[in-house]
Amino acid sequence: MPMKDENDRDTIASVFIATSLDGFIAREDGAVDWLPPFGDEDYGYSAFMKTIDALVMGRKTFDRVLAFGGAWPYTKPVIVLTTQPSLVVVPDGAICEAMSGAPREIVSRLADRGMKSLYVDGGLTIQRFLDAGLIRRMIITRVPVLLGRGIPLFGPLQHDVHFTHVVTHAYPDGLVESEYVLAADA
Amino acid sequence: MPMKDENDRDTIASVFIATSLDGFIAREDGAVDWLPPFGDEDYGYSAFMKTIDALVMGRKTFDRVLAFGGAWPYTKPVIVLTTQPSLVVVPDGAICEAMSGAPREIVSRLADRGMKSLYVDGGLTIQRFLDAGLIRRMIITRVPVLLGRGIPLFGPLQHDVHFTHVVTHAYPDGLVESEYVLAADA
Repeated sequence: MPMKDENDRDTIASVFIATSLDGFIAREDGAVDWLPPFGDEDYGYSAFMKTIDALVMGRKTFDRVLAFGGAWPYTKPVIVLTTQPSLVVVPDGAICEAMSGAPREIVSRLADRGMKSLYVDGGLTIQRFLDAGLIRRMIITRVPVLLGRGIPLFGPLQHDVHFTHVVTHAYPDGLVESEYVLAADA
Repeated sequence: MPMKDENDRDTIASVFIATSLDGFIAREDGAVDWLPPFGDEDYGYSAFMKTIDALVMGRKTFDRVLAFGGAWPYTKPVIVLTTQPSLVVVPDGAICEAMSGAPREIVSRLADRGMKSLYVDGGLTIQRFLDAGLIRRMIITRVPVLLGRGIPLFGPLQHDVHFTHVVTHAYPDGLVESEYVLAADA
Protein backbone atom coordinates (compact mmCIF):
# COMPACT_ATOMS: atom_id res chain seq x y z
CA MET A 1 0.00 0.00 0.00
CA PRO A 2 1.48 3.37 -0.96
CA MET A 3 1.99 5.95 1.73
CA LYS A 4 -0.60 8.70 1.89
CA ASP A 5 1.80 11.35 0.53
CA GLU A 6 2.77 9.25 -2.45
CA ASN A 7 -0.89 8.70 -3.09
CA ASP A 8 -1.54 12.44 -3.22
CA ARG A 9 1.48 13.02 -5.41
CA ASP A 10 -0.11 10.85 -8.07
CA THR A 11 -3.04 13.23 -8.38
CA ILE A 12 -3.21 15.42 -11.46
CA ALA A 13 -5.53 18.36 -10.95
CA SER A 14 -6.28 20.11 -14.24
CA VAL A 15 -7.88 23.30 -15.43
CA PHE A 16 -9.65 23.35 -18.78
CA ILE A 17 -11.21 26.72 -19.39
CA ALA A 18 -11.86 29.52 -21.86
CA THR A 19 -11.04 33.13 -21.04
CA SER A 20 -11.27 36.47 -22.75
CA LEU A 21 -7.95 38.06 -23.76
CA ASP A 22 -8.14 40.08 -20.56
CA GLY A 23 -8.52 36.97 -18.42
CA PHE A 24 -12.23 36.77 -17.60
CA ILE A 25 -14.14 33.48 -17.54
CA ALA A 26 -17.55 35.17 -17.39
CA ARG A 27 -19.10 38.61 -17.18
CA GLU A 28 -19.80 39.99 -13.72
CA ASP A 29 -23.29 38.43 -13.82
CA GLY A 30 -21.90 35.06 -14.94
CA ALA A 31 -22.87 35.48 -18.61
CA VAL A 32 -20.77 33.68 -21.21
CA ASP A 33 -22.51 35.12 -24.27
CA TRP A 34 -19.07 36.14 -25.60
CA LEU A 35 -18.02 32.49 -26.01
CA PRO A 36 -18.36 31.10 -29.54
CA PRO A 37 -21.57 29.08 -30.04
CA PHE A 38 -21.29 25.33 -29.54
CA GLY A 39 -20.59 23.77 -32.92
CA ASP A 40 -18.76 20.82 -34.38
CA GLU A 41 -15.50 21.92 -32.77
CA ASP A 42 -15.15 20.96 -29.11
CA TYR A 43 -11.59 22.30 -28.66
CA GLY A 44 -10.39 18.98 -27.27
CA TYR A 45 -12.99 18.97 -24.48
CA SER A 46 -14.25 15.40 -24.90
CA ALA A 47 -10.70 14.04 -25.22
CA PHE A 48 -9.83 15.95 -22.03
CA MET A 49 -12.91 14.65 -20.19
CA LYS A 50 -11.85 11.07 -20.93
CA THR A 51 -8.71 11.67 -18.83
CA ILE A 52 -10.74 12.84 -15.81
CA ASP A 53 -11.96 10.81 -12.81
CA ALA A 54 -14.03 13.59 -11.23
CA LEU A 55 -14.82 17.29 -11.37
CA VAL A 56 -14.25 19.60 -8.44
CA MET A 57 -16.10 22.91 -8.45
CA GLY A 58 -17.37 25.54 -6.06
CA ARG A 59 -21.04 25.85 -5.35
CA LYS A 60 -21.37 29.07 -7.35
CA THR A 61 -20.12 27.31 -10.46
CA PHE A 62 -22.33 24.30 -9.69
CA ASP A 63 -25.37 26.56 -9.39
CA ARG A 64 -24.42 28.26 -12.66
CA VAL A 65 -24.23 24.91 -14.47
CA LEU A 66 -27.65 24.05 -13.02
CA ALA A 67 -29.02 27.39 -14.18
CA PHE A 68 -28.02 26.66 -17.78
CA GLY A 69 -30.89 24.18 -17.70
CA GLY A 70 -31.22 21.22 -20.04
CA ALA A 71 -29.64 17.82 -19.42
CA TRP A 72 -26.92 17.55 -16.79
CA PRO A 73 -23.70 17.88 -18.83
CA TYR A 74 -21.37 15.58 -16.86
CA THR A 75 -21.20 11.80 -16.69
CA LYS A 76 -18.26 11.89 -14.26
CA PRO A 77 -18.77 12.47 -10.52
CA VAL A 78 -18.93 16.13 -9.49
CA ILE A 79 -17.51 17.17 -6.12
CA VAL A 80 -19.15 20.39 -5.02
CA LEU A 81 -17.09 22.38 -2.54
CA THR A 82 -19.39 23.97 0.00
CA THR A 83 -19.77 24.43 3.70
CA GLN A 84 -23.54 24.17 3.25
CA PRO A 85 -24.09 20.69 1.77
CA SER A 86 -27.83 21.00 2.31
CA LEU A 87 -27.90 23.63 -0.45
CA VAL A 88 -26.56 21.20 -3.05
CA VAL A 89 -29.52 19.86 -4.97
CA VAL A 90 -28.44 16.90 -7.05
CA PRO A 91 -29.98 17.14 -10.49
CA ASP A 92 -31.48 14.19 -12.32
CA GLY A 93 -28.86 11.90 -13.83
CA ALA A 94 -25.98 13.52 -11.96
CA ILE A 95 -23.43 12.02 -9.59
CA CYS A 96 -22.81 14.80 -7.11
CA GLU A 97 -21.32 15.02 -3.69
CA ALA A 98 -20.79 17.93 -1.33
CA MET A 99 -17.41 18.29 0.32
CA SER A 100 -15.58 20.96 2.31
CA GLY A 101 -12.01 21.53 3.34
CA ALA A 102 -8.70 22.90 2.15
CA PRO A 103 -7.64 21.98 -1.41
CA ARG A 104 -4.88 19.62 -0.23
CA GLU A 105 -7.36 17.81 2.02
CA ILE A 106 -9.86 17.46 -0.83
CA VAL A 107 -7.18 16.04 -3.12
CA SER A 108 -6.10 13.59 -0.43
CA ARG A 109 -9.61 12.37 0.30
CA LEU A 110 -10.38 11.88 -3.38
CA ALA A 111 -7.03 10.15 -4.01
CA ASP A 112 -7.90 7.67 -1.24
CA ARG A 113 -10.99 6.81 -3.27
CA GLY A 114 -9.02 6.39 -6.49
CA MET A 115 -9.99 9.78 -7.98
CA LYS A 116 -6.60 11.01 -9.09
CA SER A 117 -7.33 12.97 -12.21
CA LEU A 118 -9.40 15.99 -11.22
CA TYR A 119 -10.98 18.68 -13.36
CA VAL A 120 -10.97 21.76 -11.15
CA ASP A 121 -13.48 24.35 -12.34
CA GLY A 122 -14.77 27.76 -11.31
CA GLY A 123 -12.81 30.96 -10.67
CA LEU A 124 -12.38 30.87 -6.89
CA THR A 125 -11.85 27.12 -6.72
CA ILE A 126 -9.17 27.26 -9.42
CA GLN A 127 -7.50 30.15 -7.58
CA ARG A 128 -7.47 28.25 -4.27
CA PHE A 129 -6.00 25.12 -5.89
CA LEU A 130 -3.40 27.18 -7.78
CA ASP A 131 -2.34 28.98 -4.63
CA ALA A 132 -1.89 25.59 -2.95
CA GLY A 133 0.38 24.52 -5.84
CA LEU A 134 -2.02 21.71 -6.72
CA ILE A 135 -2.87 22.58 -10.34
CA ARG A 136 -0.48 20.50 -12.41
CA ARG A 137 -2.02 21.00 -15.85
CA MET A 138 -3.76 24.00 -17.41
CA ILE A 139 -5.46 24.04 -20.79
CA ILE A 140 -6.45 27.64 -21.43
CA THR A 141 -8.34 28.77 -24.51
CA ARG A 142 -8.19 32.48 -25.31
CA VAL A 143 -11.21 33.99 -27.01
CA PRO A 144 -10.20 37.10 -29.03
CA VAL A 145 -12.31 39.63 -27.16
CA LEU A 146 -11.65 42.13 -24.37
CA LEU A 147 -14.50 42.36 -21.88
CA GLY A 148 -13.03 45.03 -19.60
CA ARG A 149 -14.58 43.50 -16.48
CA GLY A 150 -15.94 40.18 -15.23
CA ILE A 151 -15.07 37.14 -13.16
CA PRO A 152 -11.29 36.67 -13.38
CA LEU A 153 -9.67 33.29 -13.97
CA PHE A 154 -6.63 34.11 -11.87
CA GLY A 155 -6.26 35.79 -8.51
CA PRO A 156 -3.64 36.67 -5.91
CA LEU A 157 -0.98 34.09 -5.10
CA GLN A 158 1.49 33.78 -2.28
CA HIS A 159 4.33 32.91 -4.67
CA ASP A 160 5.05 32.86 -8.40
CA VAL A 161 3.86 29.62 -10.01
CA HIS A 162 5.95 28.52 -12.97
CA PHE A 163 4.55 26.43 -15.78
CA THR A 164 6.07 24.69 -18.79
CA HIS A 165 4.44 25.10 -22.17
CA VAL A 166 3.38 21.82 -23.76
CA VAL A 167 1.52 22.71 -26.93
CA THR A 168 -0.53 25.51 -28.48
CA HIS A 169 -3.19 25.13 -31.11
CA ALA A 170 -4.81 28.02 -32.99
CA TYR A 171 -8.31 27.15 -34.20
CA PRO A 172 -9.72 28.55 -37.46
CA ASP A 173 -12.28 30.63 -35.50
CA GLY A 174 -9.48 32.52 -33.76
CA LEU A 175 -9.46 30.70 -30.43
CA VAL A 176 -5.95 29.89 -29.23
CA GLU A 177 -5.56 26.97 -26.84
CA SER A 178 -2.37 26.47 -24.84
CA GLU A 179 -1.56 23.55 -22.58
CA TYR A 180 0.84 24.00 -19.67
CA VAL A 181 2.12 21.70 -16.95
CA LEU A 182 3.49 22.76 -13.58
CA ALA A 183 7.21 23.45 -14.08
CA ALA A 184 8.15 21.27 -11.13
CA ASP A 185 6.65 18.35 -13.04
CA ALA A 186 8.28 19.06 -16.40
CA MET B 1 -5.01 66.52 -49.40
CA PRO B 2 -6.93 63.85 -47.46
CA MET B 3 -9.54 64.96 -44.97
CA LYS B 4 -8.45 64.89 -41.36
CA ASP B 5 -10.63 61.92 -40.53
CA GLU B 6 -9.28 59.85 -43.38
CA ASN B 7 -5.81 60.77 -42.27
CA ASP B 8 -6.47 59.40 -38.78
CA ARG B 9 -8.07 56.31 -40.16
CA ASP B 10 -4.76 55.41 -41.80
CA THR B 11 -3.08 55.22 -38.41
CA ILE B 12 -2.22 51.80 -37.05
CA ALA B 13 -1.61 51.89 -33.32
CA SER B 14 -0.03 48.65 -32.12
CA VAL B 15 0.74 46.94 -28.85
CA PHE B 16 3.77 44.66 -28.63
CA ILE B 17 4.17 43.36 -25.10
CA ALA B 18 4.90 40.38 -22.90
CA THR B 19 2.62 39.39 -20.05
CA SER B 20 2.48 36.71 -17.42
CA LEU B 21 -0.25 34.09 -17.86
CA ASP B 22 -2.32 36.11 -15.40
CA GLY B 23 -1.97 39.28 -17.47
CA PHE B 24 0.69 41.32 -15.69
CA ILE B 25 3.32 43.31 -17.57
CA ALA B 26 5.42 43.96 -14.46
CA ARG B 27 5.41 43.32 -10.73
CA GLU B 28 3.84 45.99 -8.52
CA ASP B 29 7.25 47.71 -8.21
CA GLY B 30 7.81 47.57 -11.98
CA ALA B 31 10.21 44.62 -11.87
CA VAL B 32 10.39 42.37 -14.93
CA ASP B 33 12.77 39.79 -13.48
CA TRP B 34 10.28 37.08 -14.52
CA LEU B 35 10.86 37.78 -18.22
CA PRO B 36 13.30 35.43 -19.93
CA PRO B 37 16.82 36.89 -20.23
CA PHE B 38 17.65 38.68 -23.47
CA GLY B 39 19.24 36.16 -25.79
CA ASP B 40 19.49 35.42 -29.48
CA GLU B 41 15.70 35.25 -29.78
CA ASP B 42 14.00 38.63 -30.06
CA TYR B 43 10.43 37.30 -30.54
CA GLY B 44 9.95 39.37 -33.68
CA TYR B 45 10.71 42.63 -31.89
CA SER B 46 13.16 44.10 -34.41
CA ALA B 47 10.90 43.15 -37.33
CA PHE B 48 8.01 44.83 -35.51
CA MET B 49 10.05 47.95 -34.75
CA LYS B 50 10.80 48.36 -38.47
CA THR B 51 7.04 48.85 -39.06
CA ILE B 52 6.84 51.67 -36.50
CA ASP B 53 7.08 55.44 -37.04
CA ALA B 54 7.03 56.43 -33.37
CA LEU B 55 6.49 55.14 -29.85
CA VAL B 56 3.80 56.53 -27.57
CA MET B 57 4.16 55.89 -23.86
CA GLY B 58 3.15 57.33 -20.54
CA ARG B 59 5.68 59.09 -18.38
CA LYS B 60 5.81 56.22 -15.85
CA THR B 61 6.89 53.83 -18.57
CA PHE B 62 9.32 56.41 -19.92
CA ASP B 63 10.87 56.84 -16.46
CA ARG B 64 11.10 53.07 -16.11
CA VAL B 65 12.95 52.75 -19.42
CA LEU B 66 15.32 55.49 -18.24
CA ALA B 67 15.82 53.69 -14.94
CA PHE B 68 16.98 50.54 -16.74
CA GLY B 69 20.14 52.55 -17.47
CA GLY B 70 22.56 51.82 -20.30
CA ALA B 71 22.13 53.13 -23.84
CA TRP B 72 18.75 54.54 -24.88
CA PRO B 73 17.03 51.58 -26.54
CA TYR B 74 14.98 53.36 -29.25
CA THR B 75 16.09 54.91 -32.51
CA LYS B 76 12.52 55.95 -33.38
CA PRO B 77 10.91 59.09 -31.90
CA VAL B 78 9.29 58.60 -28.50
CA ILE B 79 6.16 60.58 -27.64
CA VAL B 80 5.86 60.84 -23.86
CA LEU B 81 2.32 61.48 -22.68
CA THR B 82 2.41 63.81 -19.72
CA THR B 83 0.80 66.95 -18.43
CA GLN B 84 4.15 67.95 -16.92
CA PRO B 85 6.51 68.22 -19.92
CA SER B 86 9.18 69.85 -17.74
CA LEU B 87 9.64 66.48 -16.00
CA VAL B 88 10.62 64.74 -19.23
CA VAL B 89 14.41 64.65 -19.32
CA VAL B 90 15.54 63.65 -22.78
CA PRO B 91 18.37 61.14 -22.50
CA ASP B 92 21.47 61.23 -24.65
CA GLY B 93 20.86 59.94 -28.17
CA ALA B 94 17.07 59.92 -27.80
CA ILE B 95 14.40 61.66 -29.86
CA CYS B 96 11.73 62.46 -27.30
CA GLU B 97 8.83 64.80 -27.16
CA ALA B 98 6.26 65.51 -24.46
CA MET B 99 2.62 65.64 -25.48
CA SER B 100 -0.71 65.65 -23.67
CA GLY B 101 -4.30 65.10 -24.69
CA ALA B 102 -6.86 62.39 -25.33
CA PRO B 103 -5.70 59.36 -27.34
CA ARG B 104 -7.68 60.37 -30.45
CA GLU B 105 -6.14 63.83 -30.36
CA ILE B 106 -2.62 62.38 -30.01
CA VAL B 107 -3.22 60.06 -32.97
CA SER B 108 -4.54 62.95 -35.06
CA ARG B 109 -1.62 65.25 -34.28
CA LEU B 110 0.92 62.55 -35.04
CA ALA B 111 -0.88 61.55 -38.25
CA ASP B 112 -0.64 65.16 -39.41
CA ARG B 113 3.12 64.82 -39.05
CA GLY B 114 3.21 61.56 -40.99
CA MET B 115 3.52 59.30 -37.94
CA LYS B 116 0.89 56.71 -38.74
CA SER B 117 2.32 53.51 -37.31
CA LEU B 118 2.48 53.92 -33.54
CA TYR B 119 3.85 51.57 -30.91
CA VAL B 120 1.72 52.25 -27.84
CA ASP B 121 3.43 51.09 -24.66
CA GLY B 122 2.80 51.08 -20.92
CA GLY B 123 -0.17 49.72 -19.00
CA LEU B 124 -2.31 52.83 -18.53
CA THR B 125 -1.54 54.27 -21.96
CA ILE B 126 -2.44 50.98 -23.67
CA GLN B 127 -5.68 50.87 -21.63
CA ARG B 128 -6.63 54.43 -22.63
CA PHE B 129 -5.98 53.75 -26.32
CA LEU B 130 -7.87 50.44 -26.18
CA ASP B 131 -10.85 52.07 -24.53
CA ALA B 132 -10.85 54.68 -27.32
CA GLY B 133 -10.94 51.84 -29.89
CA LEU B 134 -7.62 52.99 -31.31
CA ILE B 135 -5.49 49.87 -30.88
CA ARG B 136 -5.72 48.07 -34.20
CA ARG B 137 -2.99 45.48 -33.72
CA MET B 138 -1.86 43.56 -30.63
CA ILE B 139 1.11 41.23 -30.45
CA ILE B 140 0.99 39.63 -27.03
CA THR B 141 3.59 37.19 -25.75
CA ARG B 142 2.59 35.02 -22.82
CA VAL B 143 5.33 34.01 -20.39
CA PRO B 144 4.40 30.75 -18.62
CA VAL B 145 4.36 32.07 -15.08
CA LEU B 146 1.63 33.25 -12.71
CA LEU B 147 2.67 36.27 -10.65
CA GLY B 148 -0.53 36.68 -8.65
CA ARG B 149 -0.26 40.49 -8.58
CA GLY B 150 1.40 43.31 -10.51
CA ILE B 151 0.73 45.96 -13.13
CA PRO B 152 -2.05 44.65 -15.40
CA LEU B 153 -1.91 44.90 -19.18
CA PHE B 154 -5.66 45.35 -19.51
CA GLY B 155 -8.16 47.44 -17.59
CA PRO B 156 -11.83 48.43 -17.57
CA LEU B 157 -13.49 49.19 -20.91
CA GLN B 158 -16.73 50.87 -21.79
CA HIS B 159 -17.56 48.21 -24.38
CA ASP B 160 -16.34 44.80 -25.51
CA VAL B 161 -13.50 45.09 -28.01
CA HIS B 162 -13.39 42.27 -30.56
CA PHE B 163 -10.19 41.16 -32.22
CA THR B 164 -9.39 38.75 -35.03
CA HIS B 165 -6.59 36.25 -34.57
CA VAL B 166 -3.85 36.53 -37.19
CA VAL B 167 -1.13 34.10 -36.15
CA THR B 168 0.30 32.40 -33.08
CA HIS B 169 3.85 31.20 -32.64
CA ALA B 170 5.07 29.05 -29.77
CA TYR B 171 8.77 29.54 -29.06
CA PRO B 172 11.00 26.68 -27.83
CA ASP B 173 11.42 28.43 -24.45
CA GLY B 174 7.67 28.23 -23.81
CA LEU B 175 6.68 31.78 -24.74
CA VAL B 176 3.53 31.92 -26.88
CA GLU B 177 3.10 34.96 -29.09
CA SER B 178 -0.29 35.77 -30.65
CA GLU B 179 -1.01 38.56 -33.09
CA TYR B 180 -4.51 40.05 -33.28
CA VAL B 181 -6.05 42.84 -35.32
CA LEU B 182 -9.13 44.84 -34.40
CA ALA B 183 -12.14 42.86 -35.70
CA ALA B 184 -13.57 45.92 -37.44
CA ASP B 185 -10.43 45.94 -39.60
CA ALA B 186 -10.36 42.24 -40.44
